[in-house]
Amino acid sequence: MLPGKKSGFELDVRLERASIPVMWLGLCELRLINDRRWPWLLLVPQRNDIEEMHDLTPLDQAMLTFELSMVSKALKQVTDCDTVNISVACNAVRQLHIDVVARSRSDPAWPGPIWDGEPHQPYMRQSLAPFLEKLRAAL
Amino acid sequence: MLPGKKSGFELDVRLERASIPVMWLGLCELRLINDRRWPWLLLVPQRNDIEEMHDLTPLDQAMLTFELSMVSKALKQVTDCDTVNISVACNAVRQLHIDVVARSRSDPAWPGPIWDGEPHQPYMRQSLAPFLEKLRAAL
Repeated sequence: MLPGKKSGFELDVRLERASIPVMWLGLCELRLINDRRWPWLLLVPQRNDIEEMHDLTPLDQAMLTFELSMVSKALKQVTDCDTVNISVACNAVRQLHIDVVARSRSDPAWPGPIWDGEPHQPYMRQSLAPFLEKLRAAL
Repeated sequence: MLPGKKSGFELDVRLERASIPVMWLGLCELRLINDRRWPWLLLVPQRNDIEEMHDLTPLDQAMLTFELSMVSKALKQVTDCDTVNISVACNAVRQLHIDVVARSRSDPAWPGPIWDGEPHQPYMRQSLAPFLEKLRAAL
């Protein structure tokens, strides 16, 4: 369990398996999708039974906006990407989660979406630790 | 020009060509992507030279959150969809714009993304007017 994590909140097991914990932000748990092809973060509001952004309370929506902005800026700074893509698509996994992906003209899917259905390519341990360190320092 | 539209704001010509004006919300111009395969709305904050959500001022971010929530709820109500997908991906068109798409288990791309690169299928005039009317009434 992450420090500060709300007890009683259950992260969807598919999201958990696909990602690595980064830090807890207040409303959201911030995680890194374990796919080295793209710097790809995941924000999961720690609220049970919420499937749509508009079903969060107005205060939670404001917090999410704040955390999303902070994470997006940090990701852009750390990766020096061209733009940040944000996606809310809770079709297969119904638990509300937000994907935040650093995109660059040089990336293999640019300018298209990264949802190619290909298997994820996990990080090497030696590149993961420095990336997480830089990211946490920027947040 | 839509009533209330900020003078001096220029909508990207590709966004303009792909969509139909719905209404002006305060911060954003709300438009409908002219593709009858999916009920697909477009929110464009009327701010010049903004390419990232995190580059909006905190007040504009709060307004965007409010308008996004309102539009998302209305779209879900009007279409009776299973979930609403939201996407910020300003890779090809750099002007900040947010896609809001009604998704259903019965739709042709479910649960995958709708970005299939296929040509858009424009609405028939007789189905467009009632849809816009219901949407405006729900907002």
